[in-house]
Amino acid sequence: MQRLLAVMCLLLFLCVELVFAAQRSGDLAQPNSADSKSDIEQILRQQVEAWNRHNLEIFMQGYWHSPQLTFFAGGKVSRGWDAALERYRKEYQSEEHEMGRLEFADLNVEMLGSDVAFVRGAYHLTMSDGKQPHGIFTLVFRKFPEGWRIIHDHTSAAPK
Amino acid sequence: MQRLLAVMCLLLFLCVELVFAAQRSGDLAQPNSADSKSDIEQILRQQVEAWNRHNLEIFMQGYWHSPQLTFFAGGKVSRGWDAALERYRKEYQSEEHEMGRLEFADLNVEMLGSDVAFVRGAYHLTMSDGKQPHGIFTLVFRKFPEGWRIIHDHTSAAPK
Repeated sequence: MQRLLAVMCLLLFLCVELVFAAQRSGDLAQPNSADSKSDIEQILRQQVEAWNRHNLEIFMQGYWHSPQLTFFAGGKVSRGWDAALERYRKEYQSEEHEMGRLEFADLNVEMLGSDVAFVRGAYHLTMSDGKQPHGIFTLVFRKFPEGWRIIHDHTSAAPK
Repeated sequence: MQRLLAVMCLLLFLCVELVFAAQRSGDLAQPNSADSKSDIEQILRQQVEAWNRHNLEIFMQGYWHSPQLTFFAGGKVSRGWDAALERYRKEYQSEEHEMGRLEFADLNVEMLGSDVAFVRGAYHLTMSDGKQPHGIFTLVFRKFPEGWRIIHDHTSAAPK
């Protein structure tokens, strides 16, 4: 009888442990908001650095490499990573175009969950002729196994 | 001794129940994606109906009634529900302006979690002089106790 009691006590202990473990794993699933924010800011910094080295391929690594990536710019919709790269090449690397020097400002990273976030911000370009095209953007980020990636970009140029 | 054993059995049973209950509540926390999508679509339909009755106050009920609401339009940032209403009044209800007839198209509601979503879409206005201003938008929605509300709107007019 004593042995049965000991086994029951052990089982009881294990059950209580299980409840607390379930609770703890729930806590772990909560977003570690500060880490995620700084990971996203890091991606944006890398994009700016790549742009200013005129390396569009590295710049594009911040985007989800998928045909489902969406890009709203100049009032027009484009779909897919390839189309986004093509658009950047045409607008900034084709004849009589240049990439200029890029800066981001007013960045506001807002976590919407442990693996989703959106970013509001402003961009500012300085061209060799002194022109300074600028505007604002909204980015939706999702965390993939390979890291945070932009799944949707909506950019609006400020009126000239 | 038999009574102690009975109590232990009861406790064991309760513990096991607790584990399963914790599991079930986790399942319940999963987004019911189809319901949420149709709730959000309903908000957008109500907005279109309100606009076409020229009732901006009801139209604005789709937005988060907060100073933290952000509105990116025409390349400019505005903050707060009051500023958003003011902007709509100025652009669509002031002298020599009209609201016209609004339609939404290409709506794509994407759930990002049980209480967050973003919507991509296009708007199309028909004015009394036959002009048809149109453009695209990105909306970030969050679910509040009172229902789904837009917490960020980024709208771009198509080039004229």
